[in-house]
Amino acid sequence: MSLDQLVSQALSGNQRALSRVATIIESESAQALAVRQLLRGKGGRARIIGITGPPGAGKSSILASIAARISLSGKSVAIIAVDPTSPISGGAILGDRIRTSEVSLRPNVFVRSLASRSRIDGLAPAALAIIRLFDAAGFDYVFLETVGAGQNQFEIANYVHTLVLVEAPGAGDSVQMLKAGIMELADIYAVNKADMPGAHLVSRELRAMLTLGDNVSGDWQPPIVLCSSETGEGFDALIQAIDDHGAHLRKSGSIQERSVRMARTETVNAVQKLVERFLDRDQGLIAAVADGTHTPEQAAGKLLSRVSQMPRSET
Amino acid sequence: MSLDQLVSQALSGNQRALSRVATIIESESAQALAVRQLLRGKGGRARIIGITGPPGAGKSSILASIAARISLSGKSVAIIAVDPTSPISGGAILGDRIRTSEVSLRPNVFVRSLASRSRIDGLAPAALAIIRLFDAAGFDYVFLETVGAGQNQFEIANYVHTLVLVEAPGAGDSVQMLKAGIMELADIYAVNKADMPGAHLVSRELRAMLTLGDNVSGDWQPPIVLCSSETGEGFDALIQAIDDHGAHLRKSGSIQERSVRMARTETVNAVQKLVERFLDRDQGLIAAVADGTHTPEQAAGKLLSRVSQMPRSET
Repeated sequence: MSLDQLVSQALSGNQRALSRVATIIESESAQALAVRQLLRGKGGRARIIGITGPPGAGKSSILASIAARISLSGKSVAIIAVDPTSPISGGAILGDRIRTSEVSLRPNVFVRSLASRSRIDGLAPAALAIIRLFDAAGFDYVFLETVGAGQNQFEIANYVHTLVLVEAPGAGDSVQMLKAGIMELADIYAVNKADMPGAHLVSRELRAMLTLGDNVSGDWQPPIVLCSSETGEGFDALIQAIDDHGAHLRKSGSIQERSVRMARTETVNAVQKLVERFLDRDQGLIAAVADGTHTPEQAAGKLLSRVSQMPRSET
Repeated sequence: MSLDQLVSQALSGNQRALSRVATIIESESAQALAVRQLLRGKGGRARIIGITGPPGAGKSSILASIAARISLSGKSVAIIAVDPTSPISGGAILGDRIRTSEVSLRPNVFVRSLASRSRIDGLAPAALAIIRLFDAAGFDYVFLETVGAGQNQFEIANYVHTLVLVEAPGAGDSVQMLKAGIMELADIYAVNKADMPGAHLVSRELRAMLTLGDNVSGDWQPPIVLCSSETGEGFDALIQAIDDHGAHLRKSGSIQERSVRMARTETVNAVQKLVERFLDRDQGLIAAVADGTHTPEQAAGKLLSRVSQMPRSET
């Protein structure tokens, strides 16, 4: 089967083809570029939602519950789960998203795990490209789930239309997240484990922080939704909040800003990839900076002109 | 006074001139580039050490204590403290480094605070350039202190020869740091508040993690040093560990690798600055990615060739 045919099958909703195309995109090979080219201009209809929060807050179980509810209502859901990989174990140290697999057996729900093996310091570079794939394949909702630890907690805001921050009593340290600046980036706050005693306190703390701050979303008032996997409370309200935020983005025109932000992130990522590949093969400029022959700015100028003169096939 | 004269005064150790040159570098203006040019090839002798760890672990007080001891031994110390700035308060939310100011009154100790105002998601871009300034000015030790929260906890490893991770009982969440991958990056572990009951447990947990993992430093066995500002315990041992690591880097030749890593970081930062400036002025390519006219990779190729064709004065 040709790549064209495979991509066509994926876009028509064939789950095996989708899986194979996602694997090609993740490989970042020349074939991946060809796939990107085939997907270009397709899609643009999906709601793209990020879910982040500290380890143990229950992001995966919330996602499993709302994906099941959305699929029951007849809409389709794709989930991209980014696994941070520890250099210590050489493998994923988080097993909690295995629970998501129950929901992956539902019709209209597709779950894809992405390793971030190549660099500990960021989201898998392919995440945005795979979001585009699911968007082009006609999924109504595309969720990107990341652990809110490390650098990717900031990046995720540049990858999505709507960012949901999941908190829970006893999970992680909200003060650290506040200091790290992640708090202000979310459009919706979900407080999980609402059946536990501390949940209302977490909710009040969040409310106090939001009152203090200028939220980046302008005239959108980020809602705080209490949820519980024990009681089923809050999931419909969370889906409603996600849909409300989508309506707000369309009505206010901010959807355009967010699309541009995503396109900018993709483009800057692609530039960075070209630059890193060049530097991996040509050590001369870096050596010249290290020994003081060039300032970093001089080296940057030379580097850009050399990279841009490389034949496309080499990049 | 000309810029040349000001830089000469700074390099001869005049603290006011050093301050003014650091401010120029931080401004990232055309003058900053001229300063970088004047500093090019100077220095290369300083020990450059990063200090990171969760908020509340006592990084600043450890740094104040060891800087005082180093200066008493006749060596000079420069400290660069990076303050994350919260969008909520519009100002620094961490006041703990004020304590460092006692030590700044000592001879041979120079303290410089750096805001990371321009982007919440990283180290102040000028940090490496200011490290170069202090190196060129002949300081024996240059310390870069950052809060171990958010993205800069990863970046700091690319900015220094030796990375010290400060932990303390009850401060932050080691499991989160482990998951985030920061643990494996440190060359030395300092467990602060050794007078408190939990300190030995923290130390044992660290030891267990280190035994599990492959430390990035190859044949260097990262020591774990217990310290206490109450009793004065451990500070001499910590200075010794820092010096031992310096000797190890020279003996093993790894110092060269780390210098190259720093030069690479500076160069990639400079490229990123050129690209970001171009994108701020020319929205066309990003719009073309957003509307599907270009793939991000096509836009990246065009962007590089346009940036590299811009007259130097515009960049």
